[in-house]
Amino acid sequence: MIDKVIAHIEANKDANVQRLLDLLRIPCVSTDPKHKPDMKRGAEWIHQLLTGCGIKSEIVETPGHPCVVGEAGPPDADGPTILVYGHYDVQPTGDESLWHSPAFEPAIRNEVVFARGAADDKGQVLAHMLAAEAWMKVAGGLPIRVKFLIEGEEEISSPSLEKVIRDHRERLKCDYVVLSDTPKFDANTPAITYGTKGMVYKEIVVTGPKQNLHSGSFGGTLANPGNVLSAIIASLRDQDERVTIPGFYDGVRELTADERSRLKELPFDEAAYLKGMGAPALCGEEGYSTLERRWARPTLDVNGLFGGFTGEGASTVIPAKMSAKVSMRLVPDQNPHRISKLFDDAVQAACPNSVKLQVITHGTCAAYVAPLDSPGMKAATQAVESGFGKSPVFTREGGSLPILPMFKEVLGADSLMVGFCTPDCNAHGPNEFLTLADFHGGTRTAAYLMDRLTVKR
Amino acid sequence: MIDKVIAHIEANKDANVQRLLDLLRIPCVSTDPKHKPDMKRGAEWIHQLLTGCGIKSEIVETPGHPCVVGEAGPPDADGPTILVYGHYDVQPTGDESLWHSPAFEPAIRNEVVFARGAADDKGQVLAHMLAAEAWMKVAGGLPIRVKFLIEGEEEISSPSLEKVIRDHRERLKCDYVVLSDTPKFDANTPAITYGTKGMVYKEIVVTGPKQNLHSGSFGGTLANPGNVLSAIIASLRDQDERVTIPGFYDGVRELTADERSRLKELPFDEAAYLKGMGAPALCGEEGYSTLERRWARPTLDVNGLFGGFTGEGASTVIPAKMSAKVSMRLVPDQNPHRISKLFDDAVQAACPNSVKLQVITHGTCAAYVAPLDSPGMKAATQAVESGFGKSPVFTREGGSLPILPMFKEVLGADSLMVGFCTPDCNAHGPNEFLTLADFHGGTRTAAYLMDRLTVKR
Repeated sequence: MIDKVIAHIEANKDANVQRLLDLLRIPCVSTDPKHKPDMKRGAEWIHQLLTGCGIKSEIVETPGHPCVVGEAGPPDADGPTILVYGHYDVQPTGDESLWHSPAFEPAIRNEVVFARGAADDKGQVLAHMLAAEAWMKVAGGLPIRVKFLIEGEEEISSPSLEKVIRDHRERLKCDYVVLSDTPKFDANTPAITYGTKGMVYKEIVVTGPKQNLHSGSFGGTLANPGNVLSAIIASLRDQDERVTIPGFYDGVRELTADERSRLKELPFDEAAYLKGMGAPALCGEEGYSTLERRWARPTLDVNGLFGGFTGEGASTVIPAKMSAKVSMRLVPDQNPHRISKLFDDAVQAACPNSVKLQVITHGTCAAYVAPLDSPGMKAATQAVESGFGKSPVFTREGGSLPILPMFKEVLGADSLMVGFCTPDCNAHGPNEFLTLADFHGGTRTAAYLMDRLTVKR
Repeated sequence: MIDKVIAHIEANKDANVQRLLDLLRIPCVSTDPKHKPDMKRGAEWIHQLLTGCGIKSEIVETPGHPCVVGEAGPPDADGPTILVYGHYDVQPTGDESLWHSPAFEPAIRNEVVFARGAADDKGQVLAHMLAAEAWMKVAGGLPIRVKFLIEGEEEISSPSLEKVIRDHRERLKCDYVVLSDTPKFDANTPAITYGTKGMVYKEIVVTGPKQNLHSGSFGGTLANPGNVLSAIIASLRDQDERVTIPGFYDGVRELTADERSRLKELPFDEAAYLKGMGAPALCGEEGYSTLERRWARPTLDVNGLFGGFTGEGASTVIPAKMSAKVSMRLVPDQNPHRISKLFDDAVQAACPNSVKLQVITHGTCAAYVAPLDSPGMKAATQAVESGFGKSPVFTREGGSLPILPMFKEVLGADSLMVGFCTPDCNAHGPNEFLTLADFHGGTRTAAYLMDRLTVKR
């Protein structure tokens, strides 16, 4: 039966691509309140696709953006139940002048789809839906029980999802969560990701005078929020690229010798990686390789700075207010709530009384690591081999998926992270893309996974 | 004759205010190329006012914005020749939501005119023009030779003015430059300013990756331009509010004991000053009073920070580029070109090789101090006493007037800085204002000054 399902997927490539383009045209920017109607359209689109092929589906409203919950397949199947998780919300476009084609007008150039959300995560989660659709159409049903949970708040740290999962705990019960929101190792090497970093996202707001002041008339007599903010941020890291927040590294799980040696064996092309970033040089925490820094070491990054005069030329103001967005990526076993508190304390300690300080928390989540020896991990490995024609490598990920530790806690399920996009796919940046080959390979892999998970094939 | 001139000014108050409002409606923002036509309108407006009352006037084009040059009065007068200098260009409005009425729709509330440029400098320079007009109309001429030089590039550090002055050196020859671009000491105390600070205005641009990157996928493996920029800025000052650029304080002229004691005697209300700024506290360089810091100590201030994600909520990018506007105010005898170089060197030294660095210079000018015992200074003192009914105090100024050291060098003339606005007039900030009482008092003072400067009155 799986061969017929795969044949169906192959025969419907063009139609599948058209559906991907349709979904990408909906600007599901969850960070921006003005896109709320587009979020509804996104959820409705997914709901229609699922119900259209006979999968039971429901749009579940939340205080924020809705999510779509679906299920199909025999409840008493000879195999585990999987929950396909993904998200239809996307990052803001950022500086639109840097996009070669508009972010929400998907363009295909050289067999590559360029659009915001192509890789993160619309294209990848759609592959699972299309695989299920193929099974439904060809086999009249799924070989195992498959559930869907596709949310609209992943890019804003999933504020509503925990309640949805807890409220629908029985309905979402599963043996494995399957998700594709991580990349392959490189363009030619599929990967299964077994760990993600956690995150704490902060905004620091420093306020001085009640309004911008003339820097000549007032300079030297009051604290300048721009100077103060710079000093606060500078105080959070040292010259060896280590975070100086007291207690920050407490509980950090060091890599095992085995992990370090496996990382070293990966076909990682450091020069190509650097070239891809386009930065002058690699740098990072002393004593760790580039891959170790990416996947297993906590970081602290400025994401944005703004305030004062930001126009052309020169305006001599002492700014009334200055803000910084600063986020930390965490590793097992850092507790995000503890790190959040330590950050607040360190910023407070670095801030003089001559300004007002506000620290806003935009999101927190824990890191996650999955076991490598589960039956699900083995089936996923086989599915990738069949779908992409190549064995996957096992990697960790610098990005954060807040839902993973939550799934583990609430549903008791470990996650299988099977990535279909390339690591240079420009997720979060301009010109995000997904190759058509990866889109179709992902669809095949998702179809194979349902087959390989059945106990009696 | 002076009494008749003053009577004419008093009788024409309303008409004079209408002309002030007319001038303020023209958005002469010299920093912004899109306002170039408005700059031309501003120059034309001034030219028309001067020629309208019989003052010879010409619009002198420059590579940037035009300036207006005029002259009237007997070449062989019994008195010195003065050159009234001012500027018709204004600062950008900044955050328009903070203005209680639109910046370029002047509003009068409680006998106060609110508009961008009301104080800096349209309202003040107009007072001199209206005083000359009154003399022309009432006396049929001016009692001394008066020249005008009203430029359109003061807020962008006067890039064209030096060439204009050098090209028109003979035509602009004078014994004193008279200008009103400094404030009174407080609302009730007129002031003559005898010194201004110099300035060096810089923009630091730090570039890392070729585009914004996902902070999870890439964080920890490259230098973050936001962290680097913060560290660079933080390195330029220490916790005692002193600038740490090597050599920065070399050549700084310390206040004399006499100056310090005179400053101490000024009726400076520190609590009111702090309340006016609306900052939580005063602070500044150790060992100096607030007035000393304002007027006689060099400073370094962040004027703007921008880059990365600056929207609502959270976006986890490593920014490709981060910029800061940073300016320094200088005192005698710091050499601005030397300070500019020292700044560049210090920034370069604080910047790692893992990012690209660009330092742009937006403007430099020297500090200036005038002699307090000249005949011109005495006449100006008497003119203020007559115009405002109160003796002026002698102050210095934290702001910069690049033209003063240039006038001294090219024309050999010292400057008489007679201020008509209040120090809390919100120059460069939202809701800039000038009281009608100060506008009229300034016009009277300017009329008296021409009279008091004549040797045989």
